[in-house]
Amino acid sequence: MLRIINQQADVIAELQRICDRTNDEQVLHKEATVREVLQAVKRQGDKAVLHYTAEFDGQILNSEELRVSKSEIDAAYENTSKDLLEAIKLACDNIETFHRQRVPKSWVNFGEDEIVLGKRYTPVDIAGLYVPGGRASYPSTVLMNAIPAKVAGVPRRVMVTPPGGEKGINPAVLVAAREAGIEEIYRVGGAQAIAALAYGTQTIPKVNVITGPGNIYVTLAKKLVYGTVGIDSLAGPSEVLIIADNTANPVHVATDLLAQAEHDPLAAAILITTDASLAKDVQVALERQLVDHPKRLNTEKAIAHYGLVVIVESLEVAAELSNEFAPEHLELEVSDPWKLLPLIRHAGAIFLGHSTPEAVGDYLAGPNHTLPTSGAARYASALGVETFLKHSSIIQYSQTALGKVADAIDLLATAEGLPSHAESVRRRVQEG
Amino acid sequence: MLRIINQQADVIAELQRICDRTNDEQVLHKEATVREVLQAVKRQGDKAVLHYTAEFDGQILNSEELRVSKSEIDAAYENTSKDLLEAIKLACDNIETFHRQRVPKSWVNFGEDEIVLGKRYTPVDIAGLYVPGGRASYPSTVLMNAIPAKVAGVPRRVMVTPPGGEKGINPAVLVAAREAGIEEIYRVGGAQAIAALAYGTQTIPKVNVITGPGNIYVTLAKKLVYGTVGIDSLAGPSEVLIIADNTANPVHVATDLLAQAEHDPLAAAILITTDASLAKDVQVALERQLVDHPKRLNTEKAIAHYGLVVIVESLEVAAELSNEFAPEHLELEVSDPWKLLPLIRHAGAIFLGHSTPEAVGDYLAGPNHTLPTSGAARYASALGVETFLKHSSIIQYSQTALGKVADAIDLLATAEGLPSHAESVRRRVQEG
Repeated sequence: MLRIINQQADVIAELQRICDRTNDEQVLHKEATVREVLQAVKRQGDKAVLHYTAEFDGQILNSEELRVSKSEIDAAYENTSKDLLEAIKLACDNIETFHRQRVPKSWVNFGEDEIVLGKRYTPVDIAGLYVPGGRASYPSTVLMNAIPAKVAGVPRRVMVTPPGGEKGINPAVLVAAREAGIEEIYRVGGAQAIAALAYGTQTIPKVNVITGPGNIYVTLAKKLVYGTVGIDSLAGPSEVLIIADNTANPVHVATDLLAQAEHDPLAAAILITTDASLAKDVQVALERQLVDHPKRLNTEKAIAHYGLVVIVESLEVAAELSNEFAPEHLELEVSDPWKLLPLIRHAGAIFLGHSTPEAVGDYLAGPNHTLPTSGAARYASALGVETFLKHSSIIQYSQTALGKVADAIDLLATAEGLPSHAESVRRRVQEG
Repeated sequence: MLRIINQQADVIAELQRICDRTNDEQVLHKEATVREVLQAVKRQGDKAVLHYTAEFDGQILNSEELRVSKSEIDAAYENTSKDLLEAIKLACDNIETFHRQRVPKSWVNFGEDEIVLGKRYTPVDIAGLYVPGGRASYPSTVLMNAIPAKVAGVPRRVMVTPPGGEKGINPAVLVAAREAGIEEIYRVGGAQAIAALAYGTQTIPKVNVITGPGNIYVTLAKKLVYGTVGIDSLAGPSEVLIIADNTANPVHVATDLLAQAEHDPLAAAILITTDASLAKDVQVALERQLVDHPKRLNTEKAIAHYGLVVIVESLEVAAELSNEFAPEHLELEVSDPWKLLPLIRHAGAIFLGHSTPEAVGDYLAGPNHTLPTSGAARYASALGVETFLKHSSIIQYSQTALGKVADAIDLLATAEGLPSHAESVRRRVQEG
């Protein structure tokens, strides 16, 4: 049953509890396992990768089988309906179009005395994309990770995903990969996949940046290898927060809450509304839709533990509570969402109005669906082209320009006790 | 003695050894200490902060003394020469001017069928800046961290720095802080400072993002709290790589190498040159400058362990070796640095020509001096305004627009086994 509380309850504490839902007491224990996997793969390469694939995924492979063959990708097309292929292509086009906008470009400025300053953007040499198997094996995940890397101009883009039964990979995932420009795919998952990408093995290349969501082992492995390689973020379970007024359709709001809850028993689905009768109607509609939901058990679990309706007196209060939670997905199902928008400070993606369910953004509106979770929207953003780019500062001074700042640098370097810093300027100025 | 090797030696392995110089076998042991400090501060707040400040910094404080008073900052101005203050102001102006360029701005695009897509940029609510004490207590560090946060529009900016003897803070650091717009300063350092910023205490606020360099304990603490808060990067010891041809002045090159080595016994200073006689001349000039260097012992250590000259046959080879190393600082001391620039793929900051020693960028050219180290320039960039900004994706669909993509979303959601995703669109389209 979806719980309803009102503003007078301890809403902040309740939101905090939901936000902290991944705080797993067993993490330290799992971290020990992950460290062992990382060390083994670092030392033994393919041998360890194959060992853990047998142990964790129950698939006995040899090194040659790690890479998914071209014929296997060809065959995946045979097993994908024409309509689904068209839908994947539409999503590809929209995602690529959005990500091509406002890509940072290199620039230099020319100042007085021939000073040149700027930034030079370059892509990473090689990117590794993790695509989960099992419950969360989604072609949309492939597109949302692979397309920004392609748009960034990353020359080599590698995908890893765990093998399913009989060593197979979900055909829609393989089709999505090829459509998004990925040809190099390895059937390996879990911490062993992250280790392979971070350190390299005989078969799998060492990459510069690893992106993509995964289970707790994958996330811990990403955190541990961060610094050896770059990572996109530490993904937690998904969440939606909906702000609704009396213009919202309770059946639609209920469906949107369920669309989040059906992902995972740890998913969170929160409604904050100014309308007490809407709250009640959403509760009823949600119960009704749950009855014959194909994933009823897990969905019900998520709603019971991490579902919540809060009744508030104003949309301003709703916005402030939303900022406290900093949701991954925020729907503004109100009469004037653009009026509410300026009050929102922290959210991964914001869906405005009554005709913008989160699903449109999950699949094909264009913006990325890899978003900060568990309150990370307070400081982090969606995965994007920038995830695969970095820049170098560009600095050129002339002899004249250097002369004009020589005394200031001398003072600062001396204050910091760094004589050769001062000297490096002084010698150039004095000796010409 | 600065070692000289040539291209035929195993240069890649040698560069790799220097790049990996922070790989500390004792890290795991130190991590246990850091975990203990983090847990204690999380549970006990100020009490633990004061305990570790007494233990690690030898300073007995009470909670009221944690915050640096306004009068202490006023007094710091009395203890700072007018000339040094002017130099700090010049650096402030140049850094702010550079960081105000190309700051990402919110945007929306209006597409067909009233589709609106965009990105909305907002600053974090509160930022925490770590400024080291001891050997690396630098006013320039304050400026390079505080000014981007100010330009980003972060409403609350907090600085932490360990207390020195008699609880004092370096006056130039306090002056730099006020000049860069920081008024809230706490005298706490080490892992306990990072813990206080990540979790909050009775006196020190919980922040959203922590930036700034520190020793190995600070860096480990930042890695462990990443995910609870955002961080800028994991800073390692500093490094310079200089590419020089026969037009370079060997005395200047030697000074630039020493300007890096004088930072830290772990600093790295590498020269790659096409000119064997330059190599020899740099070696001689460096030895001569070392003789009466005020930090001779540590500087000599850095040069002995992590100093290197490589003689190569062409600038193309030099560029490729530099890309292998991915240096924090790269100087192009060659006749035509702009011709060489396109061959450089990975470097934190690039200094072009014979009149641009790294020191000019360290202090006041404008670009940030907080740069990726230890090969991180393969995937990371300088600290910047973006470090304190995040964006929300903006998505609005109309009823008409949603109708046109309903079938595609239905197919994709069904392929992924997410029925409520499909339902959230179908219901809106069917029911109007």
